[in-house]
Amino acid sequence: MIAVLKNGTSEKQLEGLLNWIESLGLTVHLSRGDYQTIVGLVGDTSRVDEDLLRSLDIVESVKRISEPFKSANRKFHPDNSVVKVGDTSVGGDIFAVMAGPCSVESEEQVLEIAKAVKAAGATMLRGGAFKPRTSPYDFQGLKADGIEILLHAKKETGLPIVTEIMNANHLPLFEEVDVIQVGARNMQNFELLKELGRTKKPILLKRGLSATIKEWLMSAEYIMAGGNENIILCERGIRSYDSQYTRNVLDLSAIPVLKELTHLPVIVDPSHATGSARLVKPMALAATACGAHGLMIEVHNNPKAALCDGAQSLTPAQFDEVMKSVNHIREI
Amino acid sequence: MIAVLKNGTSEKQLEGLLNWIESLGLTVHLSRGDYQTIVGLVGDTSRVDEDLLRSLDIVESVKRISEPFKSANRKFHPDNSVVKVGDTSVGGDIFAVMAGPCSVESEEQVLEIAKAVKAAGATMLRGGAFKPRTSPYDFQGLKADGIEILLHAKKETGLPIVTEIMNANHLPLFEEVDVIQVGARNMQNFELLKELGRTKKPILLKRGLSATIKEWLMSAEYIMAGGNENIILCERGIRSYDSQYTRNVLDLSAIPVLKELTHLPVIVDPSHATGSARLVKPMALAATACGAHGLMIEVHNNPKAALCDGAQSLTPAQFDEVMKSVNHIREI
Amino acid sequence: MIAVLKNGTSEKQLEGLLNWIESLGLTVHLSRGDYQTIVGLVGDTSRVDEDLLRSLDIVESVKRISEPFKSANRKFHPDNSVVKVGDTSVGGDIFAVMAGPCSVESEEQVLEIAKAVKAAGATMLRGGAFKPRTSPYDFQGLKADGIEILLHAKKETGLPIVTEIMNANHLPLFEEVDVIQVGARNMQNFELLKELGRTKKPILLKRGLSATIKEWLMSAEYIMAGGNENIILCERGIRSYDSQYTRNVLDLSAIPVLKELTHLPVIVDPSHATGSARLVKPMALAATACGAHGLMIEVHNNPKAALCDGAQSLTPAQFDEVMKSVNHIREI
Amino acid sequence: MIAVLKNGTSEKQLEGLLNWIESLGLTVHLSRGDYQTIVGLVGDTSRVDEDLLRSLDIVESVKRISEPFKSANRKFHPDNSVVKVGDTSVGGDIFAVMAGPCSVESEEQVLEIAKAVKAAGATMLRGGAFKPRTSPYDFQGLKADGIEILLHAKKETGLPIVTEIMNANHLPLFEEVDVIQVGARNMQNFELLKELGRTKKPILLKRGLSATIKEWLMSAEYIMAGGNENIILCERGIRSYDSQYTRNVLDLSAIPVLKELTHLPVIVDPSHATGSARLVKPMALAATACGAHGLMIEVHNNPKAALCDGAQSLTPAQFDEVMKSVNHIREI
Repeated sequence: MIAVLKNGTSEKQLEGLLNWIESLGLTVHLSRGDYQTIVGLVGDTSRVDEDLLRSLDIVESVKRISEPFKSANRKFHPDNSVVKVGDTSVGGDIFAVMAGPCSVESEEQVLEIAKAVKAAGATMLRGGAFKPRTSPYDFQGLKADGIEILLHAKKETGLPIVTEIMNANHLPLFEEVDVIQVGARNMQNFELLKELGRTKKPILLKRGLSATIKEWLMSAEYIMAGGNENIILCERGIRSYDSQYTRNVLDLSAIPVLKELTHLPVIVDPSHATGSARLVKPMALAATACGAHGLMIEVHNNPKAALCDGAQSLTPAQFDEVMKSVNHIREI
Repeated sequence: MIAVLKNGTSEKQLEGLLNWIESLGLTVHLSRGDYQTIVGLVGDTSRVDEDLLRSLDIVESVKRISEPFKSANRKFHPDNSVVKVGDTSVGGDIFAVMAGPCSVESEEQVLEIAKAVKAAGATMLRGGAFKPRTSPYDFQGLKADGIEILLHAKKETGLPIVTEIMNANHLPLFEEVDVIQVGARNMQNFELLKELGRTKKPILLKRGLSATIKEWLMSAEYIMAGGNENIILCERGIRSYDSQYTRNVLDLSAIPVLKELTHLPVIVDPSHATGSARLVKPMALAATACGAHGLMIEVHNNPKAALCDGAQSLTPAQFDEVMKSVNHIREI
Repeated sequence: MIAVLKNGTSEKQLEGLLNWIESLGLTVHLSRGDYQTIVGLVGDTSRVDEDLLRSLDIVESVKRISEPFKSANRKFHPDNSVVKVGDTSVGGDIFAVMAGPCSVESEEQVLEIAKAVKAAGATMLRGGAFKPRTSPYDFQGLKADGIEILLHAKKETGLPIVTEIMNANHLPLFEEVDVIQVGARNMQNFELLKELGRTKKPILLKRGLSATIKEWLMSAEYIMAGGNENIILCERGIRSYDSQYTRNVLDLSAIPVLKELTHLPVIVDPSHATGSARLVKPMALAATACGAHGLMIEVHNNPKAALCDGAQSLTPAQFDEVMKSVNHIREI
Repeated sequence: MIAVLKNGTSEKQLEGLLNWIESLGLTVHLSRGDYQTIVGLVGDTSRVDEDLLRSLDIVESVKRISEPFKSANRKFHPDNSVVKVGDTSVGGDIFAVMAGPCSVESEEQVLEIAKAVKAAGATMLRGGAFKPRTSPYDFQGLKADGIEILLHAKKETGLPIVTEIMNANHLPLFEEVDVIQVGARNMQNFELLKELGRTKKPILLKRGLSATIKEWLMSAEYIMAGGNENIILCERGIRSYDSQYTRNVLDLSAIPVLKELTHLPVIVDPSHATGSARLVKPMALAATACGAHGLMIEVHNNPKAALCDGAQSLTPAQFDEVMKSVNHIREI
C-alpha cells in the first residue's frame, strides 16, 4: 500500500503518520522526491482502513498494491476451491449446470422442468420462491410454499436445489436448501452476508448491478470472514449505457480475471444477463469457452401458453440443445 | 402502456392477449399497421407486470406511457409533500440542512459538532451509528451506543437526529430516532423497505449507486405501499466511468426532474457525492440553486488531529461559511 | 414509429402534425385513449428525423419500432455479406484473423511478425502506421513510412494488410492498403466516414468507446450511404465503471445481437478490449464460440527485450497456441 | 510517476529499466519491500509514455502522481487564462453567455434571435452551420451558407459568433468566425485538434460523450501543444446508464474540479446536457452557482410553429428570464 503525501507536509506530521503505521504492525518505506514524498506500507495491509488513510490531512492519494481481500485471495490459497453440493460440486471436475424456472409457480411445473433438465444434463435445479421485484405491485413469489415445491422436486429427482434468500430471518426455511443464492440487489446487504457467514451452506453470490470485481470479492470476504468458505460467484451482467438490445452487458472477461484473483469457483448466468432466450446459447458457449466453472440457465416448460413463456427462458428442448453444444466445447 | 406485437401473431393469440388485458380491468386500443400491430392498454396500468407482458411469445416490445409508480406520482398528488420532523420539516418553507459527522465516535465529538452546526443554521443532526463498509475488516460503527450518543446530543441541542439503519431487526433501537436513513447499498433491499413501510417514521431514501430515477421512485413506492408516506429522497451521486477526481457524479439534473415526477421532497448530499471537502461548497450552492429542498453535509470537529479529518468533512467554520452562501442563494 | 402526444393537444395542432407526416409519404394510424393519443407512422421511417419529431411542442415521446438503419439492416438484406479482401474474405466460410504489432516499428520487426502469424494461420497482417494517442507527447506512429513497411511485408508474405486512417487527406497513402481501419475515437467522425463511403475499400469500423449498437450501425450506414458496402464491424470493448483489471468491458453479447440486426460481418479484438496478454486467449475462444466472423490480435516478436513487449501483445508462440485452440472450437 | 515491479524481476532487468528512465532525463527513487519493489520517476514526467512503461514485462502497474498535461496545468500557470473574443472575453470578469439556435435555418431566423439574445444580455451568438448527426439521413446543416448567415448577424448586432467545425479542410470558411467549436464526437479527433493548434482562433472544446476529465484536458493539450492557447472548455453532459428523463448527466462537479486542475475557462451547456427546455433554467442557475465562467444556451424564435420548437430550446422570453435569474446569482 502506497500513500502519496501532499506538498508542505511537516516533519512532525510525517512522524505522526509513521508512528501510526508502525502501531498497526506494518513496516514503512519512505521515498522522498523533490516534488513528492511517498510512504510505502509493507506487511498485511488487508486490515488497513483505506478510507481512513486517504482522509488524512497530509495524504494526497492512496494506492493499494496488494488486494484488500484475504480469504478469497488466490495468493494465499493457490489451489482452486471446490464447493461440495450434495453428491455434486462446483469448481472441481464437474461442470455445474443449474437450470430451472425463474419463478416457482406450481408443483407440476417444477417437477416437469426438473425431470427435463436432469435428463439434459443439469446438475442442480434452480427456481425462485422469494422474488426481488422492482415494483411492489409485481408478483413477489410463492415464498415458503415455493421452497416446499422445490424440496419435493429434489426428493423426486435427486437434484440439489438453488434458491434465493432476501431476508436473514427466513434462514430457517432454507435448512434443506442446498445452495442459497444472494441476488444482485443484495450483494452489498452486509447484514445478510454476515448472517450467511455464520452458516455452512454453499452460497451463490451474484455480482451486483454495477459492482466492481473488487467490491464483489469483498462481499465474498464478508461471508468468509464469518467462517463460511463455501462461496460460488455468479456473473450475471453489469449495467451499461446501452440497454436497447440486452438488459445488461455480460462481462465475460471477469471470468479469467477472477480465476487469477481468487480460488473461488465462478459460474455465468446468460439468461438474466441478456434477458433474451435467443442469446442464451451463444453466451453459454462463450462462457464455457473462456473457462467458467458452470452455468445458471432459466428453463420453462410451457412455451405454448403465451402468458407464461419468459422472454429469457429456454424450452426444455432448447436447453437440451445448449447442453449438447456446451459439452462439445467442454470436450476440447 | 403500449405493446408492439411480433409479425406473424395469429388472430387466436391476439384474442387471448386482449381477453387477458381486459380481465385486468383495462381497456384496449388496437392499431394495425402493414408491418406492426400495436396494442394500447388504457386504465390504471401501474399494477400491470411489465416483465410478464414483455415475456409473452407474441410481444416484441413494451413501452410504458404512464409511470409505474403511483403513490409517489405527482400526477395523482399535485401538491408538494411536507415531511414533518419534530418541530421542523422537509419539503415545506424550511430549507432542511442535516449536518454532522460521518461516524459517531464519542459523546464529546458529537455534542461539540451538534452545537456548532446548530449555531450555523443546521436543522437536524446526522451521524452514523451502523456503518456500511465495503470491507468486513473496516470499522463498522458504534451501533447501539452510537444511537445513544446521538439521542443525548438531541436532548442537549433540540436538533432532530438522522441515522442509518442496515437491518430491520434493529428497528427497536430507532424508536426515538427522528429520521431513519436507508443507504445507497440498501435502496433495493426490498425486505427492509417493506418493514419501514409498516412504521410511520420519516425515511431518508438515498439513491442507489447506479439506480435509475425510476428505480429510485419504485423503492419509495415500496415504502409508501406499506402505508408510510413520509419519504425524503436524497441524491448522493451515481457511479460513472470517471472516478479519478470525484468519487461519484452528482446528478443535479435529477432534482428538477424529480420535482416534476413526484411530490416527495428531495435533498442533496454533496459530501458523499464528491468525496472531497473542497467540492462541498460549490456543489451545495449548485444544489440550492437548482431547487433542492435541503442538504446533507458532513462536518467534523477535529481538523488539526491528522488522523480524524475526513477528506470529505468540513470543519465547523467551513460549514458556517457554506451556510452563509447557501442562505444568500436561498434569498433570491 | 410511434409518437405519443401530450395531453391538451388541440385538434388543429394534431391536424398539422398529421399533414406533415403524410407529406413525408407515410401513412398515419391514430389511437386515442382517455389519457393519451398515440400516432403511428407507417412506411419507410428510416428517413424521418427522430429528434425533429420529438422536439415538437405537442409530442411527449417518440419510439422507433423499426430500426433507423437501412443499408445495414438484415431485414432488407437477409443474406450475410461477405467482404472480399485480396484472395481472402471476411464474413464467409473463412474465419478471418488479423494479427500483427500494435505499432509498426521497423521493417525487420514487421516482416518477422508477418511470417510468424502467417505460419500460425493468420489471414491478414495488421499494424499501426498512424497512431491515435491520448497525449500529444506520446509516439504518433511512423506514418507514411509505416505504410511502406506494411506494403513491403505484404509483398513478401502475400498477406493483405489492415491499417488505421485518421485523416481523410491521407487517403492517397492508403491506395494499396487492403482494409482501412477506422478507430474507436473516430467512429463518429462523420466527415471521415463520408469520405470513406466514396471509396470502394473494405473498411474495418471499430466500435466507439461508449457507442451504442445502434450508433455503431448508424456509422456503418454513413459509409454505406455513400456507396461503399464493404464494412467489417469490430467489437473492441466498451467503457465501464470498472477498469481496474481490464481496460474495457468486452461486450460479446453484441456479436449475436449484431448477427440478428445486420448482414455485415463482425470480428472481435480481444487485445485492445482487455489490455492484457493473459486475457487474449480466453476471450478469443469466447468470441469464436459465440459466433464472431474473425479476430484481430496483437502479436509482437520481441518478448525478451523488456522495453518492447506490449502488455497486451502475444508472442508468436502464444499466438500459435491461441490459433490452435480457436481452430478446435471452429471445428465444432 | 510510480512503477510497481512484478515479483521475480531480476537485478539485470531492474538495471535495464533504471538506465532507460535515466536516459529520459529523470531521477529514480527505488523502494524495495519484502513483497514489492517500487520505482519512483522524478522530474518532468509529462513526456513519459505511460502505456509503454506499463507494457514492460517487469512492470505490474503504473501510477501517475503528477498530471500528464502541462500547458493546461494550473500548477505551471497559476493565473486564470482569459480568452479574448472580439470586444468580449471568456474567463475574466465578464460572464460569457453564448446563445442562439441549434441549427442556422435562415437569415431572418438568426437575425431575430441574435437581436433578442443580445437584448437579454448574451455576449455571443451561437448557431450550427455544419451539424454532426447520428444518421446520414438527417439534416446536415446549411454549411457555408450557414456561416454567411451568422456573419451577417454578427455585422448587424456586433455579437461575436461561435460555430462548430467538423473538418479541418473547412478552416478557410471559418476565417471571420470568432470562436470555433469542437463538438463532443470530435473531442478525440486528434488530426482536427492538431490543425486547430496551428491557428490562433479561440477554440470551444466540448467534452466527449464519455470522456474523462483527464482525456478532455489532454485534448486541450493537443491544441495547446501546437501553439494555440485560446481554449474554452465546455461541459455538456456525459453518458450514463439512465437516459430516460435527461439525455445525458450534467457533470457539474467537473467545474470546481477543472478550476483546480487548469487555468483554462470552463462554461456549461445545459441545453444539450439535458435535452429538455424545462431543465435549462435550473441547471443554468446551478452551473452559475458552482463557478462556471459562462453558459451556452439554445434559443429559438418560433415557439408557436409546432414543427420548429426544439425540445431543448428556450424562447427568447424564457431566455430573458433565465438571464435575469443568472444575474441575481452572479451578484452574490
